[in-house]
Amino acid sequence: MGSEDKIVDVNFESLLRIFTVPEAPDSTLGNIEQKLSQNLNAFLREHIVAEEKPLSEIEKDFSNAAIPEQPTLVSEHTQHLLDTVVSHSVHTSAPSFIGHMTSALPYFLMPLSKIMIALNQNLVKIETSKAFTPLERQVLGMLHRLIYSQNTHFYQQWMHSAQHSLGAFCSGGTIANITALWVARNNALKADGNFQGVEKEGLFNAMMHYGYKGMAILVSERGHYSLKKAADVLGIGQKNLIAIKTDQHNRICPLALDAKIQQLKTQNIKPFAIIGVAGTTETGNIDPLDKIAEIAKREQCHFHVDAAWGGATLMSNQHRHLLKGIELADSVTIDAHKQLYIPMGAGMVLFKDPTAMHSIEHHAEYILRKGSKDLGSHTLEGSRSGMAMLVYSSLHIISRPGYELLINESIRKTHYFAELIKNQDDFELISEPELCLLTYRYIPKDTQQALRLASQDELKILHQYLNELTQFIQKSQRENGRSFVSRTRLTPEQWQRMETIVLRVVLANPLTTVDILHSIIEEQRRIAQTSPFVLSKIHQLTQRILQKNEGK
Amino acid sequence: MGSEDKIVDVNFESLLRIFTVPEAPDSTLGNIEQKLSQNLNAFLREHIVAEEKPLSEIEKDFSNAAIPEQPTLVSEHTQHLLDTVVSHSVHTSAPSFIGHMTSALPYFLMPLSKIMIALNQNLVKIETSKAFTPLERQVLGMLHRLIYSQNTHFYQQWMHSAQHSLGAFCSGGTIANITALWVARNNALKADGNFQGVEKEGLFNAMMHYGYKGMAILVSERGHYSLKKAADVLGIGQKNLIAIKTDQHNRICPLALDAKIQQLKTQNIKPFAIIGVAGTTETGNIDPLDKIAEIAKREQCHFHVDAAWGGATLMSNQHRHLLKGIELADSVTIDAHKQLYIPMGAGMVLFKDPTAMHSIEHHAEYILRKGSKDLGSHTLEGSRSGMAMLVYSSLHIISRPGYELLINESIRKTHYFAELIKNQDDFELISEPELCLLTYRYIPKDTQQALRLASQDELKILHQYLNELTQFIQKSQRENGRSFVSRTRLTPEQWQRMETIVLRVVLANPLTTVDILHSIIEEQRRIAQTSPFVLSKIHQLTQRILQKNEGK
Repeated sequence: MGSEDKIVDVNFESLLRIFTVPEAPDSTLGNIEQKLSQNLNAFLREHIVAEEKPLSEIEKDFSNAAIPEQPTLVSEHTQHLLDTVVSHSVHTSAPSFIGHMTSALPYFLMPLSKIMIALNQNLVKIETSKAFTPLERQVLGMLHRLIYSQNTHFYQQWMHSAQHSLGAFCSGGTIANITALWVARNNALKADGNFQGVEKEGLFNAMMHYGYKGMAILVSERGHYSLKKAADVLGIGQKNLIAIKTDQHNRICPLALDAKIQQLKTQNIKPFAIIGVAGTTETGNIDPLDKIAEIAKREQCHFHVDAAWGGATLMSNQHRHLLKGIELADSVTIDAHKQLYIPMGAGMVLFKDPTAMHSIEHHAEYILRKGSKDLGSHTLEGSRSGMAMLVYSSLHIISRPGYELLINESIRKTHYFAELIKNQDDFELISEPELCLLTYRYIPKDTQQALRLASQDELKILHQYLNELTQFIQKSQRENGRSFVSRTRLTPEQWQRMETIVLRVVLANPLTTVDILHSIIEEQRRIAQTSPFVLSKIHQLTQRILQKNEGK
Repeated sequence: MGSEDKIVDVNFESLLRIFTVPEAPDSTLGNIEQKLSQNLNAFLREHIVAEEKPLSEIEKDFSNAAIPEQPTLVSEHTQHLLDTVVSHSVHTSAPSFIGHMTSALPYFLMPLSKIMIALNQNLVKIETSKAFTPLERQVLGMLHRLIYSQNTHFYQQWMHSAQHSLGAFCSGGTIANITALWVARNNALKADGNFQGVEKEGLFNAMMHYGYKGMAILVSERGHYSLKKAADVLGIGQKNLIAIKTDQHNRICPLALDAKIQQLKTQNIKPFAIIGVAGTTETGNIDPLDKIAEIAKREQCHFHVDAAWGGATLMSNQHRHLLKGIELADSVTIDAHKQLYIPMGAGMVLFKDPTAMHSIEHHAEYILRKGSKDLGSHTLEGSRSGMAMLVYSSLHIISRPGYELLINESIRKTHYFAELIKNQDDFELISEPELCLLTYRYIPKDTQQALRLASQDELKILHQYLNELTQFIQKSQRENGRSFVSRTRLTPEQWQRMETIVLRVVLANPLTTVDILHSIIEEQRRIAQTSPFVLSKIHQLTQRILQKNEGK
């Protein structure tokens, strides 16, 4: 019996062994760990079941709400995990899984993660994190400098100052966005005369004091759904998250933004935050940040940039100009678990002004005492892990020029893919790539012709059928298990803003080759042609339209 | 040159290797990982510098805000991590570090964490998490059942229902508490007639509609500081988080709670949530949950229990009666990274009613579509890691009776420690343990006598000196680096509610022996006796008081 078979019967002595006796290298768990270290992709290819099992089937393995009354041997449980969890997980690092922002990870992060977890620091306070606290502050400083390029003196003065904060590390972009808007709200409704500030008195008193009838956040209609959550949580209300229309490139229209602000003001609604998107989640486009900055400055609004995904582009000297104006933002969200290639759970929000976060500062008796450098006094979260160490290590090992290469290569590949799609006579590129994201769909060649000739009614029906087809292609491809693209619903200008379901591709994985891109297109064409009903409906309507319009 | 020396110069081919070529087992990183796997405690003992380096010194290693322009070899960076980060981290798993709620971890969690990180699932949606989604739902179901003990049919019906949710997994107790109060606020200000609900219209309109002048959350004065943050974020205002006084056992006084509610109502302030604390952070006491439940029910308030730390006690059939009434709560916070022995970053909030979270549900086009089982539609966070897997595995491998042993042993040891302190003639137990937390302080024997004889003014001064001494003891012990207890500031009934700095101990680590407890007391006594100034001030005043009162 191996050392892994530790809790055979439950007594305290046998229980202590799980804290003191490590898994043997030749144990089931030790073996798996080794295989995974030697070749992660091979391990996942071997263990993840290719063909999709319906969720209702998978759920059967997870249906018992009773906490077990009998311990399970580590070896037995490990086998169970392989069979039920690993086998039906998603191979997010596969080069052919290009549907989401989760990519392959550098190998060195696996052992480093283990060190991070073994150290089990809690970054809420120095007492449980020590060197991790200045480390995290340095990482925030590095990202701050990447955005705002302040001088050395600035960082010497503020990076480790107990009374200041350049930002907050958090579990992800959603918490980062909420934190930015929380700061913005509290600064907009700060203490004034007898009024003690929204943080103390609450939103109702604050608005009574300032005489506002409402508070508004403005963002393009392509803003991330987390902003709706933020508007809800912060008591602003989702209706007061105002969607501004975008141009044909999915970028906010500054004129429309300006007009909306003036209109809100006549209604006595205070626009307190404007959000620029630097890499929309659905189309990958970047708002004209400098123009938004100008409006925000004039209107004395907080200007936040949601660069959760696109922010990593600042690493590329070649492409960082695409985010021109980001340095004018009061705050910026960046997710390191997207294109900085860090495991899930590494979001950040940076603030231009080291005093901005004062409005959300908090203290307690036993920790976060005033004057302490405890990170927890400026974070929405409390206890937090040492994820910042993984960012720290990656920034050192990969370095800025390394990240630049990864970013440049991703963008280059995406432009290649865009050309590839344009060169197919049965595919349509829906949104051009700015970064490494694009959307497209499959349309049979003759249907493309029919679309140009169709009446308004026919167009709508055909469009509806094409949506069904796109959905079918995406689902089938996922179920086949060889490759994965995602889908979303857009309202493209070129299709009269009709709701259009599109295939969505993010080319962040450095292991994705152009051969894979070709084969994904091939597979989609093949799936489309074997679609049981939709394609024939499309075909019939196409023929009808073409015949009717023959000779035109 | 080993395979670890991958990025020598930055070109795309060498960069690709970090994604494709694993660290060699004989590389620096490979070696560390192995040592850490073989004997974590020895590794940490060897690498963490015992004597404390001042933070200002540590900061020097983390002072450069520039992202490196040159890549660093993995081996070189690993050595750098050992020298600057690991060496000055906190040995949270040391059996003599009994100051915080972070404990040693079972060994099997280290390799499992690596698997979890290598899989890099994103639990916001099924498309990037597949089996992890039902797994997380099962874990939530298990904790729900641990609290609410519903029958099998209940869990069959709701655990995997797309339209329902038994709770949310989150990064920690703070987000869990915010989530609970967010739900409570939205349910209290729900849609009604023309009013579309606070989530859509915001707090100002909501209160205008319902005619409230304020919204209040009530909790004992021992409530966790995260609740202040919640009151701020949610727009309620920190002033409207009402602190109710506690009895001599740090438990909320139900009469005072009731009186406060009636008073708020006459002011037209809506008490929408009452919070019971099941394990206060500073003293470890449990509120009379059943009595709070009764009041909450009568007043139609949401009843939330913050059992972030104490909730694990439900695993113990012997001790779960201490949390009597928790099953009446509308929601409960439990942190798995506290006494469920999971690495940092595993909080949960459970809701009794599977429809409670409807009030914070949200959807988007490309994910969280209506009817999907995507977990992200009911979480404050967006992208999240697969931490639930670690809870799942621990629940299976340790099992409920295993956890019961750990809990029982912790409580038994804490009662032993309380007796030990009481038996010293120069220590004073400040708060009796209910679970595995207690507070105490060092007071020289003759000073104890002097305290009984002192005038009010003398008492105050002596108390002040003792606070200085306690602080000195705690700091010195931490700086010595052999052991660690924390400190906090209480207002104990037995000391006329004067501010009293106390030593605080949490005995969660199963490896902490009674010998260690004895030696910690010894070390504290030794430190006290070598304190340069404070002890002599105490001694002088003590003598003066004793002489003045001689013969009394």
